[in-house]
Amino acid sequence: MTDSGSLLIHPIARIQTGFSSKFGIPRQSGLVETLQGRVVFEPEYRQAEALRELEGFSHIWLIWHFSACSGRKWHATVRPPRLGGNRRVGVFASRSPFRPNGLGLSCVRLTGIDCSAADGPVLLVAGADLLDGTPVFDIKPYVPLTDCRPDAAEGYTAGTKTHLLQVDFPPALLEQIPERLRAPLLGILAEDPRPGYDDSPEKVYGLPFAGFDVGFAVEGETLRVFRVTACEDGGAPADQSG
Amino acid sequence: MTDSGSLLIHPIARIQTGFSSKFGIPRQSGLVETLQGRVVFEPEYRQAEALRELEGFSHIWLIWHFSACSGRKWHATVRPPRLGGNRRVGVFASRSPFRPNGLGLSCVRLTGIDCSAADGPVLLVAGADLLDGTPVFDIKPYVPLTDCRPDAAEGYTAGTKTHLLQVDFPPALLEQIPERLRAPLLGILAEDPRPGYDDSPEKVYGLPFAGFDVGFAVEGETLRVFRVTACEDGGAPADQSG
Repeated sequence: MTDSGSLLIHPIARIQTGFSSKFGIPRQSGLVETLQGRVVFEPEYRQAEALRELEGFSHIWLIWHFSACSGRKWHATVRPPRLGGNRRVGVFASRSPFRPNGLGLSCVRLTGIDCSAADGPVLLVAGADLLDGTPVFDIKPYVPLTDCRPDAAEGYTAGTKTHLLQVDFPPALLEQIPERLRAPLLGILAEDPRPGYDDSPEKVYGLPFAGFDVGFAVEGETLRVFRVTACEDGGAPADQSG
Repeated sequence: MTDSGSLLIHPIARIQTGFSSKFGIPRQSGLVETLQGRVVFEPEYRQAEALRELEGFSHIWLIWHFSACSGRKWHATVRPPRLGGNRRVGVFASRSPFRPNGLGLSCVRLTGIDCSAADGPVLLVAGADLLDGTPVFDIKPYVPLTDCRPDAAEGYTAGTKTHLLQVDFPPALLEQIPERLRAPLLGILAEDPRPGYDDSPEKVYGLPFAGFDVGFAVEGETLRVFRVTACEDGGAPADQSG
């Protein structure tokens, strides 16, 4: 810590997910529970002792760095995609990546601790909304007594939470995706991965996920997949995330 | 961000609370809801726009620095006071201040935004478990959809949450405390502010709070206050925290 209160923080871990680009990442943690990730500690922190009794908690907090967004100047207001991309809210009233210090906060489900992995102990998590390789600065247990506030007012997010698309994924295309990745992919598509709300049905998108490029278009409330292509450089993160 | 993923972060705000020392600070945020605090932004961030629509949320997250604990080396295990001080759990299974990077995470109630203050806009918060002057690195809205997990398993914290002491605070002593500070002080005492569990009823403690020194002892499940002294250097934080 310096006199000004500035602080140099170092990654304790990195997360492995199927997301090689920001496009398609769920806008909040927990929205797509079938998404698997691995939290791999940096060598200094690979100690089973540091995780003692963590297995009793079903959820954990990750504090991490919006590393893919670093370097961009912050602005006082942002336009959350879930509000249509036109309404501005204050940056501190948002979970936007473009914020002072660029820290992210995610609650994810802890599905297991893999102590036998060569890079273990590794935390197996579900519902992570993080880019593959994202540096993690802290891991804390989710303590319901203080973290679960059922009476909390949800502000402008109240109107956004039920926005799910119908997904039309032709079976012949879906079969090209490994079975264990189908549920997460369908979840991501239903969450409407378009960067903004362009209502034109002609607009086509390519979603990179776990070594595949998934082509789709959206008309009204229906998302239609028309192409699945295996990418040459993909696959590794997904294989690691099981 | 450096190649190693290290990140230099800067305070966006500092919190004003009645706590001039660690002793007596509730062990988790939200436990003593009557505790008032003010989140005062650094000059660069004093912009009402950055808070637009925050007022619709009842709770916010603070990511902050355990600044009073910085410089201490981290250990793989810690002994949470609420577990009696002898049982060890992993540092990442705890909310202990003695952790890599020293980041704290607190959910507090947002009771108001004071835009007319000379150092405003200022966030008025309740339930903060932070030392006076603590640097805050980020403020995010508490979004129930992703942050509230009523089904979360509470691990070893399950057995600790109902531990409250009976407080015997003689009326003549309580009258020396300004009325608005009485409820928070009683809340802090009921939470058992002893640093560890020393069961000897002879042991006496002095709790510094908002310009007062409160002498007490604990016998069994009863905390008895026997002295209230106004401190010369106190008062200011409490006056600021209304």
